Amino acid sequence: MDVMERAARIEAAGGQVIHMEVGQPAAPAPHSAREAAKRALEHGRIGYTTALGLPGLRARIARHYAETYDLDLDPARVVVTTGSSAGFLLAFLSMFEAGDRVAIANPGYPPYRHILTALGCEPVLIETDAASRWVITPDALRAAHARAPLKGGLVASPANPTGTMMRPEALAELIATAEGLGIRFISDEIYHGLDYAFPAATAAAISPQAAVIHSFSKYFCMTGWRVGWMVMPAPLVRAVERLQQNLMISVPTLSQIAAEAAFDGAAEMEAVKHGYEENRLILTHGLPKAGLPEFLPVDGAFYLYADVSRFTEDSAAFARRLLDEAHVAATPGVDFDPHRGHHYLRLSYAGSAGEMREAVERIGDFLRKG
Amino acid sequence: MDVMERAARIEAAGGQVIHMEVGQPAAPAPHSAREAAKRALEHGRIGYTTALGLPGLRARIARHYAETYDLDLDPARVVVTTGSSAGFLLAFLSMFEAGDRVAIANPGYPPYRHILTALGCEPVLIETDAASRWVITPDALRAAHARAPLKGGLVASPANPTGTMMRPEALAELIATAEGLGIRFISDEIYHGLDYAFPAATAAAISPQAAVIHSFSKYFCMTGWRVGWMVMPAPLVRAVERLQQNLMISVPTLSQIAAEAAFDGAAEMEAVKHGYEENRLILTHGLPKAGLPEFLPVDGAFYLYADVSRFTEDSAAFARRLLDEAHVAATPGVDFDPHRGHHYLRLSYAGSAGEMREAVERIGDFLRKG
Repeated sequence: MDVMERAARIEAAGGQVIHMEVGQPAAPAPHSAREAAKRALEHGRIGYTTALGLPGLRARIARHYAETYDLDLDPARVVVTTGSSAGFLLAFLSMFEAGDRVAIANPGYPPYRHILTALGCEPVLIETDAASRWVITPDALRAAHARAPLKGGLVASPANPTGTMMRPEALAELIATAEGLGIRFISDEIYHGLDYAFPAATAAAISPQAAVIHSFSKYFCMTGWRVGWMVMPAPLVRAVERLQQNLMISVPTLSQIAAEAAFDGAAEMEAVKHGYEENRLILTHGLPKAGLPEFLPVDGAFYLYADVSRFTEDSAAFARRLLDEAHVAATPGVDFDPHRGHHYLRLSYAGSAGEMREAVERIGDFLRKG
Repeated sequence: MDVMERAARIEAAGGQVIHMEVGQPAAPAPHSAREAAKRALEHGRIGYTTALGLPGLRARIARHYAETYDLDLDPARVVVTTGSSAGFLLAFLSMFEAGDRVAIANPGYPPYRHILTALGCEPVLIETDAASRWVITPDALRAAHARAPLKGGLVASPANPTGTMMRPEALAELIATAEGLGIRFISDEIYHGLDYAFPAATAAAISPQAAVIHSFSKYFCMTGWRVGWMVMPAPLVRAVERLQQNLMISVPTLSQIAAEAAFDGAAEMEAVKHGYEENRLILTHGLPKAGLPEFLPVDGAFYLYADVSRFTEDSAAFARRLLDEAHVAATPGVDFDPHRGHHYLRLSYAGSAGEMREAVERIGDFLRKG
């Protein structure tokens, strides 16, 4: 937020900022989605839907699992949510009680711990590093569970802020370990579809007891529409339905209608994804030459998590200088990792290829000037 | 839900059901709102907004308080929410801790107690009756607080399911009592604008420490858009902003754009309101002649809460019979009042005048047949 405000001030003064701090695509929702919303607006009332979501959308999401993962998924297990945010709230409320310990990776997406804390649960940060390919390992999970029993575990692959992914075997092994220990498993798959290093595996294909959180925000470029979905273990669907009824009533109707049509815009979204792939290559090839050679595996999503420890002990100050002097906005690692984040910077590459090339130039000049 | 499913079955078999069970307007959102949404769809990306909501919408809502209540309200205290549902969640999380006791009226809107319970708070049902005009009185609040300290109190006026309103003096007195006891006050004003008996007073004009929850769902007929707002005490706005950022990121953007334009559709919405007023007269004049003379003060919203104790000890069974035999769908009081709800039925009059006349006929025939 600090970065965004400073960037806005620079732009107000005529500066040209390259925005690598934001976690949202620059492209709009697929044409098909926007047209479906317009048609719905012609038809009059936009009323409540059932709490679990429009049946057509739930069926279409289930079909997406057949098409993408060759998985036969019962639409009854699909719950439409107001973005992945509401998915986390509903998953946590249906799976955990106040006081429960839930393992999450560090670094990680800050709302995980903030939502858990707001609900009275205890987020247990599991440190990840290069040796574990920056994901929670079965050993790390067992060790945390041995210190005090865990009730849940949550991983994201591709992950925010790191952009790294779990190999399918690693995900399967972690889920088996969790289930063996009686730990409920939640897989944040919001960046699925944006995988470059290897195909992302869904937890839904690994265990019917795992909960999956997903969203139309990233791959389908529908951030502001606030629509996503969960795949829940069958025995928890009724609890989630009751929670959604009471806590949200229903998910925004226009967004649900648009989301169902979004699947018809996959060709458009694949073109957007190819743009990210190009951006990824520009950064992974350009940044080492620019003097920034250390970053985590750039597997998926649209994030590059760079190690800036050779330049600074204070990533927030470093991000401010990079913005003020080079007009490149990035997010300091301290936003994602309270322990080692002062050594990292998250760069989002959801912009254009031209912006990425210019960013590499600017970062190179900035680092050379010191 | 039971009633809705039975009604759907009757309609599938060719029956004509009059829907008085639903809490949503039959009319669409104002033309101005739908056109604004369409224009936004032409312009491309629908991205996140700031957590507190679009500045233009917050300013427009503040202006609404000047226009409607002659109140000078700082837009900084206005928080846009994903319907009133998210408003309750944010208000409760920012004001209360797990274990806190919060007073609510019985009968009342069930999600109050379900959201409080989900958050680990304790809903304290305060019985209301004709003597208190079906609202929480200062004496009742003091008595509940004396049994065990209350941290919060929540009232709705006009209320769901009763349709009754608090007189401005009664609301002011209750707020003063609450604040004198250190009890945080929340005023659910979602049915404001739909007041027939006398003008509804806003808690925002009574105390800057009261929280107000409001929505575009009812007066502006925007249920499925999921957009509402809160007026928060100034010292709590920052906490609500952080909660919204973490729990919801932001409110659906199209809905915010449409909501701002909805204020330009007030003439259209006043016509809808006049329809409810006509419906109200049809029911309040017709039902006594049809054999249903006992109901609570029909002050506002679009609900009539009828006493059916002369006919039944089981409002759920009575509602089923009324639906099966007369094809009139109504909601049994047990949905709103665990103690005395078996003696009541909630009738929504958000439909057409023709439907209301037909409902009076059918109810009369049904009661005569016994």
